[in-house]
Amino acid sequence: MPFRDATTEEVNSAMENAWKAFQIYRNTSLKDRANLMRSIAQEMEALGDQLIETAQRETNLPEARLRGERTRTMFQLTSYADACESGAWMDIRIDTAVPDKNPPKPDLRKMMIPLGPVAVFGAANFPFAYSTAGGDTACALAAGCPVIVKAHPAHAETSELVAQAISAAVKKNNLPGGVFIHLHGAGNEVGKALVTHRYTKAVGFTGSHAGGRQLFDWANQRKEPIPVFAEMSSINPVFLLPKKLKESAAEVAKMYAASITLGVGQFCTNPGLIIGKEGEDLDKFMNVLKEEVSKVQPAKMLHAGIAKNYVQKRTEAFSNAEVLSLTAEKAEGSPALATATANAYIKNPVLHQEVFGPYSIVIRCKDMDEMISVAKNTEGQLTGTLMATNEDVKENQELVDAVKSFCGRFILNGVPTGVEVCLSQQHGGPYPSTTDSRFTAVGADGIKRFARPVSYQNWPDELLPPELQNANPLKILRTINNEASF
Amino acid sequence: MPFRDATTEEVNSAMENAWKAFQIYRNTSLKDRANLMRSIAQEMEALGDQLIETAQRETNLPEARLRGERTRTMFQLTSYADACESGAWMDIRIDTAVPDKNPPKPDLRKMMIPLGPVAVFGAANFPFAYSTAGGDTACALAAGCPVIVKAHPAHAETSELVAQAISAAVKKNNLPGGVFIHLHGAGNEVGKALVTHRYTKAVGFTGSHAGGRQLFDWANQRKEPIPVFAEMSSINPVFLLPKKLKESAAEVAKMYAASITLGVGQFCTNPGLIIGKEGEDLDKFMNVLKEEVSKVQPAKMLHAGIAKNYVQKRTEAFSNAEVLSLTAEKAEGSPALATATANAYIKNPVLHQEVFGPYSIVIRCKDMDEMISVAKNTEGQLTGTLMATNEDVKENQELVDAVKSFCGRFILNGVPTGVEVCLSQQHGGPYPSTTDSRFTAVGADGIKRFARPVSYQNWPDELLPPELQNANPLKILRTINNEASF
Repeated sequence: MPFRDATTEEVNSAMENAWKAFQIYRNTSLKDRANLMRSIAQEMEALGDQLIETAQRETNLPEARLRGERTRTMFQLTSYADACESGAWMDIRIDTAVPDKNPPKPDLRKMMIPLGPVAVFGAANFPFAYSTAGGDTACALAAGCPVIVKAHPAHAETSELVAQAISAAVKKNNLPGGVFIHLHGAGNEVGKALVTHRYTKAVGFTGSHAGGRQLFDWANQRKEPIPVFAEMSSINPVFLLPKKLKESAAEVAKMYAASITLGVGQFCTNPGLIIGKEGEDLDKFMNVLKEEVSKVQPAKMLHAGIAKNYVQKRTEAFSNAEVLSLTAEKAEGSPALATATANAYIKNPVLHQEVFGPYSIVIRCKDMDEMISVAKNTEGQLTGTLMATNEDVKENQELVDAVKSFCGRFILNGVPTGVEVCLSQQHGGPYPSTTDSRFTAVGADGIKRFARPVSYQNWPDELLPPELQNANPLKILRTINNEASF
Repeated sequence: MPFRDATTEEVNSAMENAWKAFQIYRNTSLKDRANLMRSIAQEMEALGDQLIETAQRETNLPEARLRGERTRTMFQLTSYADACESGAWMDIRIDTAVPDKNPPKPDLRKMMIPLGPVAVFGAANFPFAYSTAGGDTACALAAGCPVIVKAHPAHAETSELVAQAISAAVKKNNLPGGVFIHLHGAGNEVGKALVTHRYTKAVGFTGSHAGGRQLFDWANQRKEPIPVFAEMSSINPVFLLPKKLKESAAEVAKMYAASITLGVGQFCTNPGLIIGKEGEDLDKFMNVLKEEVSKVQPAKMLHAGIAKNYVQKRTEAFSNAEVLSLTAEKAEGSPALATATANAYIKNPVLHQEVFGPYSIVIRCKDMDEMISVAKNTEGQLTGTLMATNEDVKENQELVDAVKSFCGRFILNGVPTGVEVCLSQQHGGPYPSTTDSRFTAVGADGIKRFARPVSYQNWPDELLPPELQNANPLKILRTINNEASF
């Protein structure tokens, strides 16, 4: 089903609607916002098999994966709804007046208010969890912001179905339609019009580095710049430490063969870079990795653009004289393993690029100093992993520090694929993995991307919002005169 | 005493030093950072009268004000030190493992780590509190970041003295000298070299719109963009509501005459825009305001550049046909009052500009709808104030909403001058008052500008930092499995 790109007039009219709706939606209670989010989850579930079938047809993703992703998306909506309603994310601080101080200290009470309409750009690889009703939409709605989604063209029909579910929930909750607006736009124009519109107050994006950086630049070149949280690219380096590798090279290789090829490697947390010290343990690791990966059957990728890009980036990597192929590439989506020396990696930025797909490169270091150099010469990442015994960790503090420095999630003895949805999750990291390492795209702390603090000074209790009133009617955890209390 | 601008080589060498120091300083305990901050306060106090005399000579500020500002600066350092040590600012979240879930839920623990070296640009109008050892420096040190200060050329000698005090404290605390570096730079080159250096990871700035925007643009044009918190300009609108004005026009006028002329109007929270409804109450207000302001003697401004700029901006405002002068300007630093209609204000962006100095313009509205239009046509501000009875507030919700929307601190029946240093303070606001409304320059939450979350996944207790260990040895308030606990 083809969808027409929104015209400039349609974008303008959408933003006018969103702005009008904002005047109402920003004054809704935390409970009302939470109820809307729970309704969206219900409406999404009510779409039943039609949603799964449509997404399957558009994305080539298997049914079980899509059912799991829908469940996850509903959990995001409902768990962020709970977090929204708890009010803890508002970081409420109250300092009561001290009238006999000189000068008198006024009563000050700080809470969060929404930024305004948020433009959300869905991801190709998560048609539900990072798309139309995904994490960015859930966080923005929790913060009190209307959402304008630009559907990902690779699953526009899926997006349309989810948008209808959201709009139904908005209606059932007696909220203005402008709280959620859905637009199509296969070209760049709609995105640019959205990001540069005066009523757009923040942007959420998941996708390529080129796309994210373009939105970030447009947003910062505005007369009134707006915050952009773009999650862009990550090769999720994994450091194999010597004692761990000696202990269990084959087990680690098996674990990683599964992680590299999971979902045809189409995860932002796919381990695309594995670093080890040369020697028989690393050879054993590489042999088992190669063997295991070669058992995996090629599968269809999300869409033709991604498949083409994968083949191109893979070819680009292998065209370097220093890069050896460990696998014989066959079809488009077939897994590929490469290897190169630490020296080659440090000198050649092409080897640092994300090859989106079931690809990983093993970097061979002469010694631990070279491994530290690799870590220090690695750009910002969503995750960094150590495969290490406790002794390995204790003996290699400089390496541990260097890995922690470039990542948002720091994993010990695990795989980076699999992003738990919970408050302690940090799905974010230094540039270029995201445009602002101080925020997260997963977990209810992601709400803070779309809200800002406001301090009420000298207001009588009866005129304060319930969040700030003395009696604490909403039972929010608040910090009063530097002490946390309910 | 003339100071030479740092050369590019000196900036590079400073950044190398800061980067080296960062590798040590980021691993210091919260207690060590807090002790450093307390030492800086002590060393600053130990400078005694020499510091006050030097600042007096360089800034024309009166002795009592400078003594008060030093006390405030020391309070910032020691109270943020307490906040740093408490660890609450780290927003620690722990979700413990659920091994029998399918797939198993890993143990995840999130805390804050420092961004890296922070370039701080001091303000002309606060030689202590927003300069060398000011709020940005205190927050960056608390976060675990080395600081590189570019001294404000208008009080370079004062800055040099404070820098020596900080360096003495760094030394006494056995920390590397690169934790704090002080550079001079009267031109733009040093600032540009600092903001664009690869080892600079964040920027703190207080000053003009042109200066802040320039740093923001440089930072965002980098290959690796970095966060900039620039506090830039604010005219701090005050809305006089009808019932309040009828009740106490004269008292309000007296209060505001004092606020407008306080410190020769050289505060970022100076009330530069007052909005009221035409009629005899507003006439009375304007008459008393004029009378009170005309009693204030002109005083010397901070430096020649600011004085020149004040006269120029004031003249520019008065050159508009719609603007009437209420005062006869005399000397450079003499207070000036203007008035214009709401219609003129809405149409003419020049009237929205900050006139840094003892200046304010009274905007006359025909009715409450015009007052709402003025609020809706006002750019982002540090503060917004309502002078209003409780009834005024209840009867004018649209206006109340519109004022809240543009400000960071929302004052009822008070003056915006006077910024309390406490956790509930929001000294920040939508652009152009700052470059990121989600953060504050005052209060210990300002530490969060310079830190980012990192999640530890699947680490054994013995290898975790103390902040995240099960026993909670630092007694930090943490959220564990969605429940707050010590």
